[in-house]
Amino acid sequence: MNYTPPVKEMMFVMEELADIASISELPGLADSNADTALAILDEGAKLAAEVIAPLNARGDQQPSEWRDGTVTATPGFADAFRQYTEGGWQGISHPAEFGGQGLAKLIASPCIEMLNASNLSFALCPLLTDGAIEALLLAGSDELKARYLPKLIEGVWTGTMNLTEPQAGSDLALVRSRAERQGDGTYKVFGTKIFITWGEHDMAENIVHLVLARTPDAPEGVKGISLFVVPKFLSNDDGTLGARNDVQCVSIEHKLGIKASPTAVLQYGDHGGAIGYLVGEENRGLEYMFIMMNAARFGVGLQGIALSDAAYQKAAAYAKERVQSRPVDGSGAGSVAIIRHPDVRRMLGTMRALTEGARALAYVAAAHADIAHHHDDADTRARHLALNEFLVPIVKGWSTEMAIDVTSLGVQVHGGMGFIEETGAAQFYRDARILSIYEGTTAIQANDLVGRKTLRDGGAAAHALLAQIDETLDALKSTDAGDAARVFEAMHRRLTDGRDALANVVAYVLETGKRDPNAVFAGGVLYLKLAGIVLSGWQMARALLVAQRRRAEDPAFHGAKIATAHCFSEYVLTQARALETAIVCAHGDDPLFALSEAQF
Amino acid sequence: MNYTPPVKEMMFVMEELADIASISELPGLADSNADTALAILDEGAKLAAEVIAPLNARGDQQPSEWRDGTVTATPGFADAFRQYTEGGWQGISHPAEFGGQGLAKLIASPCIEMLNASNLSFALCPLLTDGAIEALLLAGSDELKARYLPKLIEGVWTGTMNLTEPQAGSDLALVRSRAERQGDGTYKVFGTKIFITWGEHDMAENIVHLVLARTPDAPEGVKGISLFVVPKFLSNDDGTLGARNDVQCVSIEHKLGIKASPTAVLQYGDHGGAIGYLVGEENRGLEYMFIMMNAARFGVGLQGIALSDAAYQKAAAYAKERVQSRPVDGSGAGSVAIIRHPDVRRMLGTMRALTEGARALAYVAAAHADIAHHHDDADTRARHLALNEFLVPIVKGWSTEMAIDVTSLGVQVHGGMGFIEETGAAQFYRDARILSIYEGTTAIQANDLVGRKTLRDGGAAAHALLAQIDETLDALKSTDAGDAARVFEAMHRRLTDGRDALANVVAYVLETGKRDPNAVFAGGVLYLKLAGIVLSGWQMARALLVAQRRRAEDPAFHGAKIATAHCFSEYVLTQARALETAIVCAHGDDPLFALSEAQF
Repeated sequence: MNYTPPVKEMMFVMEELADIASISELPGLADSNADTALAILDEGAKLAAEVIAPLNARGDQQPSEWRDGTVTATPGFADAFRQYTEGGWQGISHPAEFGGQGLAKLIASPCIEMLNASNLSFALCPLLTDGAIEALLLAGSDELKARYLPKLIEGVWTGTMNLTEPQAGSDLALVRSRAERQGDGTYKVFGTKIFITWGEHDMAENIVHLVLARTPDAPEGVKGISLFVVPKFLSNDDGTLGARNDVQCVSIEHKLGIKASPTAVLQYGDHGGAIGYLVGEENRGLEYMFIMMNAARFGVGLQGIALSDAAYQKAAAYAKERVQSRPVDGSGAGSVAIIRHPDVRRMLGTMRALTEGARALAYVAAAHADIAHHHDDADTRARHLALNEFLVPIVKGWSTEMAIDVTSLGVQVHGGMGFIEETGAAQFYRDARILSIYEGTTAIQANDLVGRKTLRDGGAAAHALLAQIDETLDALKSTDAGDAARVFEAMHRRLTDGRDALANVVAYVLETGKRDPNAVFAGGVLYLKLAGIVLSGWQMARALLVAQRRRAEDPAFHGAKIATAHCFSEYVLTQARALETAIVCAHGDDPLFALSEAQF
Repeated sequence: MNYTPPVKEMMFVMEELADIASISELPGLADSNADTALAILDEGAKLAAEVIAPLNARGDQQPSEWRDGTVTATPGFADAFRQYTEGGWQGISHPAEFGGQGLAKLIASPCIEMLNASNLSFALCPLLTDGAIEALLLAGSDELKARYLPKLIEGVWTGTMNLTEPQAGSDLALVRSRAERQGDGTYKVFGTKIFITWGEHDMAENIVHLVLARTPDAPEGVKGISLFVVPKFLSNDDGTLGARNDVQCVSIEHKLGIKASPTAVLQYGDHGGAIGYLVGEENRGLEYMFIMMNAARFGVGLQGIALSDAAYQKAAAYAKERVQSRPVDGSGAGSVAIIRHPDVRRMLGTMRALTEGARALAYVAAAHADIAHHHDDADTRARHLALNEFLVPIVKGWSTEMAIDVTSLGVQVHGGMGFIEETGAAQFYRDARILSIYEGTTAIQANDLVGRKTLRDGGAAAHALLAQIDETLDALKSTDAGDAARVFEAMHRRLTDGRDALANVVAYVLETGKRDPNAVFAGGVLYLKLAGIVLSGWQMARALLVAQRRRAEDPAFHGAKIATAHCFSEYVLTQARALETAIVCAHGDDPLFALSEAQF
């Protein structure tokens, strides 16, 4: 697989849109400046392109294998993972205190993106380990932190998240795994967990499972769930491994995509109980899991952007090389490279615009997280936390839904060759299909956006973002756009439409949320997509302003950015009004609930 | 796989929207009446559901296998194919003169749909045979007809279409295969053909390849292509098989989907030349191929509808059974079947609306074909032929693009289980991905719609359809809608919007087509999608009128149709204006052609 991490584009977004300069002025983030970022991205790009991307197709053809409870990763993965961890990549944004590099989430984001673009299956292992690290940082005792964090951050041990059970997918109230308190403060854990990504493998000496379970006297529902560390191997105080714990991988799944990433069924406690250690307090597991999931969901959003970029690069390369048919404008008598055909350009332009818009939004969200965690003013922290939390379900939901479309367009650009597995375009399409499902389906993200992120604060975060969009609209109006005047006008018109559509929908959600929840939640996913389109379009408008201002410095790069912003305004932002109409004017539940269950 | 052919819905569309009663009054189609149709559909439904659908998953898991030039179909396929042909299904719409049943295309359409919904890979073999039959009926000599048609129509021999070569996909001007005239009137054919569906297999005693090739003195480009019959085995005058011809299957492809259907690379003439028989006249091959492709393209459109229905049925069944989470409206304290959640309903309602709308449009197009071929008045024939030809690229392009979305929603409804191959939802998603590519990509369909079907007749066919939509709009307005008044109002508003959007785009295409072809063709696929949405929505509006009028006769069925029409108006027709804006206001090529090739 040929994938070139778009370092220049990533730096543009970090510097111009996510303002890395101001991030590096935050307490504790002095190293997170543009120079360091560039050095890190260049280094990461080498590892991604040269070591990890070449294993992507192999992982698809020779998936992880289960045998008698052990799982062997695709040949080459373990060695690549060793190089990854030895380079210190697992710890890039984790605290120096436990061996990490303590860099900003803004710098970690492009690193995660390029890893995922190279090899989504591979990248899932570090992603889940990040989740385990976050959980322990958040709520682990000092002892748990000391025992597990250095190993996880070094990458010699990996982590997993164990939420799902056969009867409990999106609905964690149905979790049945149980944890019995022992006299020594530990617990014995029993139950079956499914869909555990990298739940068993041979790339690390130990696996640290973070497991949701109920204590015997816990209340019903989600308020009775606790979080436990259940390591594959117990460990001694000196860090050496102890006894094998009572957790077994009984099978792995046969999946549509991400085949190299083993998706395990884990059985806890069949031989007397798996020893587990409580994280934080009993019955607060869901709360910890949510904070940890916020990070993981953001990471999945980056996966959508990553796959989209990889699919775009592959399709663009093919379109420049594949010769087929004469130009429709009569500009040549012979067959030409298909990139000269308008529909191929429309597909590539759409793929590119969607990817760049989603990337910009995600990195901006990462900068909000950095400010929320590092600023010395509590009000500022709270304000940016609210913005980050508003954006996370959108980054997750929109970037992954758009990735399904972008990878599908990637297949289409290849024509018949796209359907042949050896070409590689189909793998992106298959891999992408999990992204809108795991770590909370798009509907779950939409419920979060509607309920926790819009209704709960009375639309405050949404209105703050709308006000920022207004500033960008003013800037578009007051800037001398020179020969990009038509692009500026188009963007102003479409972004105004989009902004109004989003504002109307936010007002509708606030008005109707309590009175007619079915109506509002029926439009939840459409609201999420509308927000994704408008907020990404806003970032493209901001990029347009910068690119026009700095055009002379690098005409090719900035000219491409201007044209891509134009593609976004005409092919993507134009969809905003349709979404508004479907959300607001469908009168929500009427058509959907007019059908009885039997009629479906 | 559990698939129940929707015979009642199919009959509703045939009787109420495609007017089978008037089709049965056409010369030669007296048997093509509603009673016969129902009997045939009931019989076909049994075969599809009981014999062919159960092989669908097996075909995915145990694809056709190539070995030393021979291909063995999935176990069970050959026997099922025997049952299919013995039932006379291959000949359903072909002339009685050659052993067919001579029924209307309108009746063949639901039969083809249910076959494809049961097992797309399997159904491709009869579909390609239909193509070969059409080509021979159209242009074959009496001798070719007599030798090949009875065997093909009986189904003891199957047919293929050989267009594509490695360098010639969409661009048939690049075909290099050559055919050398022999003294005896036959030809010797040489060349490599790829992507030949069911190009080699063991389900029939002979395979009749229809092959595009050039004679030595042919003009360059598409005007120098001729069409040949090249059988796998030559045959004797008494119908027995003769010598093996010089055509070899050198490999089959490893594909994203339709795995049971062998996609062959065929090598012609490596041992002296494959004996071929000219179909029609030299250098007119493309012309014959186009007429034949019109039928095949329509068939692929039916495949999109078929897979969509199969995916819908599976998702609806899962949604009724899977219990997860409490209702958002607080109507219950415990977890409920997910069909009670608004977003799951939105997905199912959208899947269902898209499928029913596309089916109605396709069957109506089939009725136009029947009138075009059987009416005794030449003007009437010509008028309906023009409408059918306008609709074919839309049925093909729209039904297949929508199938990608519908099968993707089908995966999404299943959540994590949708990504597990054993569930079966993923197979529909993979299988569907070829539909917008083979028999002409969506862009090729769009070029046909823009060029041959809109510009060439000055928009006459489009305007005729717009006038029919106006009649439906009037009927919506003048009908007493009773308690469906809000649905009628909503449909009237949305269909008016859609109609206006389509009219504006047709005007734009006519105005701009010559002046700025890049701009128009850049919006070609969007125009096709707009036409698909508006024309399907129009059929749903017609269905709404019927369902309201006849509601009391069958309240459950007609009530469901009314609710589904409402879903279509609110979730699908609402997209029409966005497409118009993107087509007309993008100023076409600006953003797309502002990027140089190197900038992509």
